[in-house]
Amino acid sequence: MRMTKVLLAAAASVALLASPLSAKKIKWKLAETWPSTLTPLASPPAKLAALMKEMSDGEFIIKVEGKEKHKAPLGILDMVKGGQYQMGHSGSYYWKGKDINTVWFTTVPFGMTPSEQYAWFYYGNGIKYMKEVYDKFGVYNYPGGNTGNQMGGWFRKEIKSVADLKGLKMRIPGLAGEVMAKLGVNVTNIPAGELYTALDRGTIDALEWVGPGMDIKMGFNKVAKYYYTGWHEPASEMQFLVNKKAYDKLPKKYQVMLETAMKAASMDMYIENFAQSADAWAKMKKDYPDIQVKTFPKPVMQALKKASDDVYAGYAAKNPKFKEILDDYTAYMKKAREWSMMSQYYYLQTSKELESTK
Amino acid sequence: MRMTKVLLAAAASVALLASPLSAKKIKWKLAETWPSTLTPLASPPAKLAALMKEMSDGEFIIKVEGKEKHKAPLGILDMVKGGQYQMGHSGSYYWKGKDINTVWFTTVPFGMTPSEQYAWFYYGNGIKYMKEVYDKFGVYNYPGGNTGNQMGGWFRKEIKSVADLKGLKMRIPGLAGEVMAKLGVNVTNIPAGELYTALDRGTIDALEWVGPGMDIKMGFNKVAKYYYTGWHEPASEMQFLVNKKAYDKLPKKYQVMLETAMKAASMDMYIENFAQSADAWAKMKKDYPDIQVKTFPKPVMQALKKASDDVYAGYAAKNPKFKEILDDYTAYMKKAREWSMMSQYYYLQTSKELESTK
Repeated sequence: MRMTKVLLAAAASVALLASPLSAKKIKWKLAETWPSTLTPLASPPAKLAALMKEMSDGEFIIKVEGKEKHKAPLGILDMVKGGQYQMGHSGSYYWKGKDINTVWFTTVPFGMTPSEQYAWFYYGNGIKYMKEVYDKFGVYNYPGGNTGNQMGGWFRKEIKSVADLKGLKMRIPGLAGEVMAKLGVNVTNIPAGELYTALDRGTIDALEWVGPGMDIKMGFNKVAKYYYTGWHEPASEMQFLVNKKAYDKLPKKYQVMLETAMKAASMDMYIENFAQSADAWAKMKKDYPDIQVKTFPKPVMQALKKASDDVYAGYAAKNPKFKEILDDYTAYMKKAREWSMMSQYYYLQTSKELESTK
Repeated sequence: MRMTKVLLAAAASVALLASPLSAKKIKWKLAETWPSTLTPLASPPAKLAALMKEMSDGEFIIKVEGKEKHKAPLGILDMVKGGQYQMGHSGSYYWKGKDINTVWFTTVPFGMTPSEQYAWFYYGNGIKYMKEVYDKFGVYNYPGGNTGNQMGGWFRKEIKSVADLKGLKMRIPGLAGEVMAKLGVNVTNIPAGELYTALDRGTIDALEWVGPGMDIKMGFNKVAKYYYTGWHEPASEMQFLVNKKAYDKLPKKYQVMLETAMKAASMDMYIENFAQSADAWAKMKKDYPDIQVKTFPKPVMQALKKASDDVYAGYAAKNPKFKEILDDYTAYMKKAREWSMMSQYYYLQTSKELESTK
């Protein structure tokens, strides 16, 4: 009897020792702006969840909910801030109505390339500014995957001059829309599900989406012939949002695990999107040989650049933090672009020259 | 007394329950080709070790040993194969004497850019071929960080024609050296520590190293004026090697942790090198304004391209696996390059045009 008691006590102490392990089990929810099947945008959260489950031996579970479930694609920041979700996956520039400085962490017209921007994030002041800007929302912001340079969009007619932009009806959101509006473009906002029909029927003359990999799913290549190269979203970075209180409560090992998995999943998205775009473009070109890849003529690019600079100057005049980040970003880009030209541009130019003289 | 015995038994059972935890403690060693202070090349192993320690709560320790310790920079593959080290960090093309097909996992002359190559690795057949080629060594090979497009090298005299290459004494190893030799270059191999003096004294006329970030540490900018853009190593990927038996014995969670940490650390190196190169080039240009960035004239590039194709054809004729990978690689590059031009080249070209008309 006495021995039994002691054994029971021993068993209890064993249970106590074991219990912290199972008590540590963490269950988080992540809300993403996209439908949960929309790769490559939906890939980073899915991969993050899979990696966390495996690396934690099932102790850290992240349930991912796409927009088909939560119905609030543009409510992600609020839901993570409020703690309904511990995490979110979205695009920082969607929050420009809350703070214009969120745009710096996605991409800006005539801005940095992905390599340049990652260098600014991690070895310049990018991450520092990210922390400052997101601090007031009570969330941490992390890079969440990059689409690379997005295409300038699908146009029903060729753009030969700045005059051709006047009165053009185009779906192009964000800062790029503000830039286009300065050149007389009639910027419209149409829900994604209606875009194909609008372009087909001529309700709009042009639209921008992402790039071949995602555009082909929308079918735009069937209804417009001119596919313009990009200038307005040269390095669109997605974002992971993490509720600060939830993150700060995690044991250090899970904080590091989360950051490592976010980084690996983000890199994967950039590569996945690159591969999908290469495949999709090869298919588009074969199935729709009439598609012409165009770059805006130089006077159009000059006008777009000037209009972009005007848009920046407008925000900088009203918002000192915008001016601070703009100056830092511009100086870093100038330095980084020289290296991009030396290492990336001339190599591709050589490849083009060799191809044309075969 | 009896109670004490029981308590002791209970304590023992507690110890037994606790012991599997500490018994799981894993201690690995990693040998790298580089001195352990040589960033960015030495950064991925250092970051991997730090991440593994933190994510495993101190249960998975990787001790990194640089070449200053093991003295066998080109013995990494053998040491990981033999199990003296569970892991290695090196460059796959160093093993071309053991199997020419190892070159495909670093970079090849006129080959893919980093984005293209990562797409081929993860969404094409790259990883599949990696497994096939490394299987016989009893190791797993993983991407281990990328330098981006390396510079074509430092030249004391300008190269104006193919004739200028004849008799030129140049340090340029690997396949690129074979290509240069076909054009009459006197290819020499000189230890790293003697390169600066050799270039300064004219013992050699030219050399290639990496890019501004690493070149500036060697001081080449002080003794040569012409800095040529690259063609021969467009996307040099480092490698992590893992001894198969050691890896296969790991619990699943540690396998996933290791792969995730290797991927995150590899991405970091690409960014770190990009940032270091942008900084170093800005500094070089300021301190040594006479340096001229040059691209080889078109006839020289055409000759280099033809010589590269000849080198490939030579290996393909002798080695069916080389031919198989060459064909797969070439087809993927053709598809991916079109997307690189659309998404990357035209954007940088626009930036150049706008800069020149300011």
